[in-house]
Amino acid sequence: MGARTIWVLSGPNLNLLGTREPEIYGSATLDEIERSLVDEGARAGVEVRCFRSNEEGALVTRVQEARGTAAGLIVNFAAYSHTSIALVDALAAAQVPAIEVHLSNVHRREPFRHRMMTARACIGVIAGLGPIGYRLALQALIARIGAAPVEKSA
Amino acid sequence: MGARTIWVLSGPNLNLLGTREPEIYGSATLDEIERSLVDEGARAGVEVRCFRSNEEGALVTRVQEARGTAAGLIVNFAAYSHTSIALVDALAAAQVPAIEVHLSNVHRREPFRHRMMTARACIGVIAGLGPIGYRLALQALIARIGAAPVEKSA
Amino acid sequence: MGARTIWVLSGPNLNLLGTREPEIYGSATLDEIERSLVDEGARAGVEVRCFRSNEEGALVTRVQEARGTAAGLIVNFAAYSHTSIALVDALAAAQVPAIEVHLSNVHRREPFRHRMMTARACIGVIAGLGPIGYRLALQALIARIGAAPVEKSA
Amino acid sequence: MGARTIWVLSGPNLNLLGTREPEIYGSATLDEIERSLVDEGARAGVEVRCFRSNEEGALVTRVQEARGTAAGLIVNFAAYSHTSIALVDALAAAQVPAIEVHLSNVHRREPFRHRMMTARACIGVIAGLGPIGYRLALQALIARIGAAPVEKSA
Amino acid sequence: MGARTIWVLSGPNLNLLGTREPEIYGSATLDEIERSLVDEGARAGVEVRCFRSNEEGALVTRVQEARGTAAGLIVNFAAYSHTSIALVDALAAAQVPAIEVHLSNVHRREPFRHRMMTARACIGVIAGLGPIGYRLALQALIARIGAAPVEKSA
Amino acid sequence: MGARTIWVLSGPNLNLLGTREPEIYGSATLDEIERSLVDEGARAGVEVRCFRSNEEGALVTRVQEARGTAAGLIVNFAAYSHTSIALVDALAAAQVPAIEVHLSNVHRREPFRHRMMTARACIGVIAGLGPIGYRLALQALIARIGAAPVEKSA
Amino acid sequence: MGARTIWVLSGPNLNLLGTREPEIYGSATLDEIERSLVDEGARAGVEVRCFRSNEEGALVTRVQEARGTAAGLIVNFAAYSHTSIALVDALAAAQVPAIEVHLSNVHRREPFRHRMMTARACIGVIAGLGPIGYRLALQALIARIGAAPVEKSA
Amino acid sequence: MGARTIWVLSGPNLNLLGTREPEIYGSATLDEIERSLVDEGARAGVEVRCFRSNEEGALVTRVQEARGTAAGLIVNFAAYSHTSIALVDALAAAQVPAIEVHLSNVHRREPFRHRMMTARACIGVIAGLGPIGYRLALQALIARIGAAPVEKSA
Amino acid sequence: MGARTIWVLSGPNLNLLGTREPEIYGSATLDEIERSLVDEGARAGVEVRCFRSNEEGALVTRVQEARGTAAGLIVNFAAYSHTSIALVDALAAAQVPAIEVHLSNVHRREPFRHRMMTARACIGVIAGLGPIGYRLALQALIARIGAAPVEKSA
Amino acid sequence: MGARTIWVLSGPNLNLLGTREPEIYGSATLDEIERSLVDEGARAGVEVRCFRSNEEGALVTRVQEARGTAAGLIVNFAAYSHTSIALVDALAAAQVPAIEVHLSNVHRREPFRHRMMTARACIGVIAGLGPIGYRLALQALIARIGAAPVEKSA
Amino acid sequence: MGARTIWVLSGPNLNLLGTREPEIYGSATLDEIERSLVDEGARAGVEVRCFRSNEEGALVTRVQEARGTAAGLIVNFAAYSHTSIALVDALAAAQVPAIEVHLSNVHRREPFRHRMMTARACIGVIAGLGPIGYRLALQALIARIGAAPVEKSA
Amino acid sequence: MGARTIWVLSGPNLNLLGTREPEIYGSATLDEIERSLVDEGARAGVEVRCFRSNEEGALVTRVQEARGTAAGLIVNFAAYSHTSIALVDALAAAQVPAIEVHLSNVHRREPFRHRMMTARACIGVIAGLGPIGYRLALQALIARIGAAPVEKSA
Repeated sequence: MGARTIWVLSGPNLNLLGTREPEIYGSATLDEIERSLVDEGARAGVEVRCFRSNEEGALVTRVQEARGTAAGLIVNFAAYSHTSIALVDALAAAQVPAIEVHLSNVHRREPFRHRMMTARACIGVIAGLGPIGYRLALQALIARIGAAPVEKSA
Repeated sequence: MGARTIWVLSGPNLNLLGTREPEIYGSATLDEIERSLVDEGARAGVEVRCFRSNEEGALVTRVQEARGTAAGLIVNFAAYSHTSIALVDALAAAQVPAIEVHLSNVHRREPFRHRMMTARACIGVIAGLGPIGYRLALQALIARIGAAPVEKSA
Repeated sequence: MGARTIWVLSGPNLNLLGTREPEIYGSATLDEIERSLVDEGARAGVEVRCFRSNEEGALVTRVQEARGTAAGLIVNFAAYSHTSIALVDALAAAQVPAIEVHLSNVHRREPFRHRMMTARACIGVIAGLGPIGYRLALQALIARIGAAPVEKSA
Repeated sequence: MGARTIWVLSGPNLNLLGTREPEIYGSATLDEIERSLVDEGARAGVEVRCFRSNEEGALVTRVQEARGTAAGLIVNFAAYSHTSIALVDALAAAQVPAIEVHLSNVHRREPFRHRMMTARACIGVIAGLGPIGYRLALQALIARIGAAPVEKSA
Repeated sequence: MGARTIWVLSGPNLNLLGTREPEIYGSATLDEIERSLVDEGARAGVEVRCFRSNEEGALVTRVQEARGTAAGLIVNFAAYSHTSIALVDALAAAQVPAIEVHLSNVHRREPFRHRMMTARACIGVIAGLGPIGYRLALQALIARIGAAPVEKSA
Repeated sequence: MGARTIWVLSGPNLNLLGTREPEIYGSATLDEIERSLVDEGARAGVEVRCFRSNEEGALVTRVQEARGTAAGLIVNFAAYSHTSIALVDALAAAQVPAIEVHLSNVHRREPFRHRMMTARACIGVIAGLGPIGYRLALQALIARIGAAPVEKSA
Repeated sequence: MGARTIWVLSGPNLNLLGTREPEIYGSATLDEIERSLVDEGARAGVEVRCFRSNEEGALVTRVQEARGTAAGLIVNFAAYSHTSIALVDALAAAQVPAIEVHLSNVHRREPFRHRMMTARACIGVIAGLGPIGYRLALQALIARIGAAPVEKSA
Repeated sequence: MGARTIWVLSGPNLNLLGTREPEIYGSATLDEIERSLVDEGARAGVEVRCFRSNEEGALVTRVQEARGTAAGLIVNFAAYSHTSIALVDALAAAQVPAIEVHLSNVHRREPFRHRMMTARACIGVIAGLGPIGYRLALQALIARIGAAPVEKSA
Repeated sequence: MGARTIWVLSGPNLNLLGTREPEIYGSATLDEIERSLVDEGARAGVEVRCFRSNEEGALVTRVQEARGTAAGLIVNFAAYSHTSIALVDALAAAQVPAIEVHLSNVHRREPFRHRMMTARACIGVIAGLGPIGYRLALQALIARIGAAPVEKSA
Repeated sequence: MGARTIWVLSGPNLNLLGTREPEIYGSATLDEIERSLVDEGARAGVEVRCFRSNEEGALVTRVQEARGTAAGLIVNFAAYSHTSIALVDALAAAQVPAIEVHLSNVHRREPFRHRMMTARACIGVIAGLGPIGYRLALQALIARIGAAPVEKSA
Repeated sequence: MGARTIWVLSGPNLNLLGTREPEIYGSATLDEIERSLVDEGARAGVEVRCFRSNEEGALVTRVQEARGTAAGLIVNFAAYSHTSIALVDALAAAQVPAIEVHLSNVHRREPFRHRMMTARACIGVIAGLGPIGYRLALQALIARIGAAPVEKSA
Repeated sequence: MGARTIWVLSGPNLNLLGTREPEIYGSATLDEIERSLVDEGARAGVEVRCFRSNEEGALVTRVQEARGTAAGLIVNFAAYSHTSIALVDALAAAQVPAIEVHLSNVHRREPFRHRMMTARACIGVIAGLGPIGYRLALQALIARIGAAPVEKSA
């Protein structure tokens, strides 16, 4: 049931986390981050499902599918965050609340990472806090969904 | 036979037409729009074939295939219209006359929709007229092709 | 009766069509274009009236007069399309649906023709299709007005 | 005698005041505004004369004529305020103190209304106060001219 | 009682009026200007209270305090007019109608004085008319408040 | 003892939270937000201390004092976030990890709120999540500090 | 006969030459300048005809009429030189060689006079040389036309 | 064994080489270019493997796979060269030396081809030399790898 | 007596000199710098008085007070140097010769430090020379004041 | 004697005139142009001396030497016209009236030729008229010098 | 005989190669690079001649002399590559195919090195490959010239 | 011996000091300034050598020669300061500490003098203090070199 399902969408090159420029992105792998989100979601009675793609179009499709299926989105479109109008349109069409997460603090990096295109279609952004940023985004979405009816976890 | 075939290419998020921000894009679905184009084409002895994709690269490939196959293109690359150099190059390579259609009037929307990248490789643009824009584009291409001699196809 | 009257407004240098840079603007004269629009309108029970001026202010005045008089406007403000705030204001004041037509595809010409100022006060734009663009604009406006009840006028 | 004459010049679309986008420009007509200025001027022994045009060039000509004829100008060049170098030059040539009035607060509207071109040739600007802005401009000019000696004119 | 109280807020360096660059700002002191506003207000049954500060933050605080206390604001934030987002936010929060006054015509000075930041949170702007600009702003606000019923205060 | 103390710094106009443009900033007051942070900190053995000021300079001073005193900073410099080089310098000098929080999603507001100046001196940013953003920032800092050994303080 | 006729077109405010900002534009009147051009032309067997207007549109019309009528144009569009796309289009349509003349050296004046829009449709430009600039332009055009065979006209 | 393997990655529309705008890109097909690189590599004891895609995401994936597999990359991302942050990130993650090749001299083409985005993640660029550019890039990479010890492979 | 008094004004974060990013700003404290200036001034019969503030407004006030009191100003407005129009205005009002000093070479740092706003109201600038820059500024001002007649003061 | 001497300075690549891109620059050689200027000067009792250099610095030196030596300068700094601040300074220092000549109409060429740097230090500019432009410049300078009294020199 | 002569032109500071910032430019000296080019050319029956200068004008002159003398140019104008219009003009005039070489990858350095001015007048560019870039450029030019008629070397 | 030698390099037009725009540059000649620097250096046991050129390339060469020869550089590249990448590179290669001096305060002059290109390769800048600026720069360099041990040289 979508009402308590949250999707985590990871964009290009995030599949390499842990090995890719660890001085910028840290040493946690995307598997580890996703697993901990699934666990944390489970404790709160929320199903967390994770998708990843290097393709802008595949991410667009996935965002579209969230409509009526997911109760919230945690999105890290990585490089596409700064340029993709298509993802802006998809988020607007999906009408599912999304929080954008960035592992690094994009505001202290190259100027072309300062332009936040997809963030304008999200409810909020968490950047620079590493893997914990995902956990915080999950909490924020859970808080928005409300406590699980019967589940006693979390 | 390509000499009387027109392709309709739809870019990202257009598959959601009818449900997606109807106050901007109207309530007609893409299926309905495409069906009416096929019908209208048939009446003029022109085969209309429709393709859609959320992927920039898939659209590039489709445009390439138009070369020698299609007599004209009706393209709505949606978000990619404003940024895609790859589609500009594909259109230039395809050497098939293309008309770009936008359902909404992009010129009264956000500034990042004012830059018309792919339009520079088209013969013309129709924007803001909703689904009728497609019909007009079809007529314009048919006028260019000339009246159908005797054919019964499509 | 204004409810079935459509005005065609032509801006600076369009009076020279047919002789002016025909490799860009084609060989049809404005007289020919206007006559064919009047004829086509008549067939649809719509009166088409045509005005032309090289003066920005005269065009402003004409647009103002459309209020309550014309059911639709086909406008080609030519050079003023790219700069005229006064025409934007006039169109907003007139509250008559307008479609902007350009004979050439402005998006593949000099950069100063890429800025679409008056288009932001129109419902849509048709560019690059030559004289047929006017015909398509007329059809779009007629479709908007609805079929002519019985009238035989024009 | 020009020494106690003030001209009020109104640019494009101001003739539509009262009906044109009243949520922006208010419901007073230009006739009403001008009449009240004439009356108010009369009370102060100042002749107020009003001109209006949708034409940039006609406004240029009128400004030129103010030289040696008018003691002050109240100008609302509307759309031309943001772009007209010709009016800047005319005001500089006329050497008559001018106050620019805008009914709406241009600074909170579209960016293309933030550029104040003609204001640089005026002594001051009053914007956003509706019709009262004209009255204040009149007072300011009268204060500049000085009290009427014995005047019976106007 | 706030309903008939108008505040006059003066920003950095205005305390030096009369001595500071008199060729630009005139020879009237801020004391003189304020006194004449208090007098003029009194004549109209309106209490005028004046504040001045060189500190952006102190001005922010003062604007905040206007909420529910003042019926109108006359603000001249001087240098901060061109840059202060904090004052924009304070004015938006205060929900008290404000008129921005500039003694000099900022549009004919250095380009960095052409950007009007705080004006976007005001109802209007009066610039370039010297001390009389304040008087006009007061009149405009009084006109907005309406005639004083019977009160004798101020 | 600074090693388990976290400061919360609030910039201009945040003192008005709850009443100020609630459709943007929500209905929670700053008192409520701060109280909940103090409580939440206490539960984690962390002392949370809160400061607020409308003054850029006062905020600079407070950031400086954090050096050697606070283990982390939660900062919402509001309007100053977009322009203050002085706060960038203060944060660099303080050498205390800071997380910048914004209640609203600045990326979907006016363009002048898209420039993130102070964020470049923070470790991360949380924007658009309302009051919960502060709570998430607190958690992130606590996670960084590590579990409280035996602490009785706070 | 047009083959030996040269037109001199003067734009907005040039009718005021001699009185208008003489420190910039000199003390010669436009009458004097035009008369000397007519005389000089006559000596070379060339008819010089002069037109002036404050209206952009009237100048457009005049340029159009030059086609097939004038052998050359000396144009000083004054303020419109920097912005008028309509005059660019008219010159391109007229296909008559034009030389643009400016009395003042626009390159050392305000930045908005540095953009040379209409010059791109002329064969050349002469700026800053005062009335003599017109004479030089006339000579250049006469040189282009060639020596007068026997004619005694003009 | 990757230590002596070099990959050649070709981006959008390069599959059309030889037929696509031959006046810009030459008449060699991509098949011919690739075959000659494989042969030339073989002569130097280096395995050359070639990939092509119109998809940005597929190219990202391929670049990622080069890590630990390829000793060098010859990349021609064509249109994506000018915009793709995702490819910049992939190259940075892959940590394989890459040389960017362009058949045409992008610096003398349209301005949007002057911005070199992916080149910033390469060791070098060769542009404008046609198919020979690929051969030179191969030599440069081979020079970097060093002479083949005894190899019999390729 | 002001005629031989020089003020040293230090802006935000300079109070932290010696501990703040010493690799940029050096290890001398502001106390040490000021003390050495006082001593050096004394030797030249000049009283040096030092002020510091993190507040833009307080610095404005101090600059104002210099009028008629100080014979020269050594100012390091630090972060405010790049943005403060208020300090530009204060310096213009104070009419006291000021030399701007920067410890670091701002021209080789972040682009937002390249804009020199307050320097335009100073007679000169010394940047990048560390504490010695202050000493040189003092000498330059003393040279300007002239040798002390008999002075015993300071 | 300098009072009747005019210098002609030619910048980089002008030595190639006649052979260099004749479709842009014409077929006259610089020798021919210079010779005709010397002859024409002689007829007017003016000595014309010609210098050429590809070096910016050599041109600076030559301009400096004009002071007190030449009565006027005809300068064509070619490529340096668009960028050289050093030549601006030299012209300002020389205090000799200079007319800048360009053979081609720079305003219709690449955008980097639209910026007129050195023209701001000249009295005027003649562009686009080919070799005749030099002759016109010479006439203008001679007109400025006045008729030759009796001298027979040159 | 020029038909088999290739010139190598080195711009400012390249004479310092080997000692100048070796972490950017490598340790090879320009002598070594030139010698190896001469040798390599000799083996291919091509005379390689090398010139170097720190002067823009001297480089312009040298490029001019290549006309009819050299069959190809390898140019590294170093700093002048990014700004010199004079070298663009010289290359256009010389009509000798030129390849621009940069030792470092200019695209990953400071933004002012991203603008490629002289490259627009070359047939191609090789950047970032160190000294080998020169060798590759030589091969490319030799390939263009064709095999040496009789020589047996290479 | 270079360890106690300081070079003074003067760029274009500085040779004219004293006569060139004295209201900007003062009345001291470059000879006077240089002589006083030599004298002052001698008093401190430092040899001061002075060079001047109007040529960018000659200045580049001179800066290169400083390496290992001069202990410090005082540079005033005048106009080239704002544009010369070649001098930036030369200074970086020379690895000799340089102080840039400007007689006038470039920050209050034309915008094209606000860009400080060569300053980014210097340790510091002194601007606006006239000839004394050179003296201060000399002191700063001497302070850096240290007191002369016993020196008799220079």
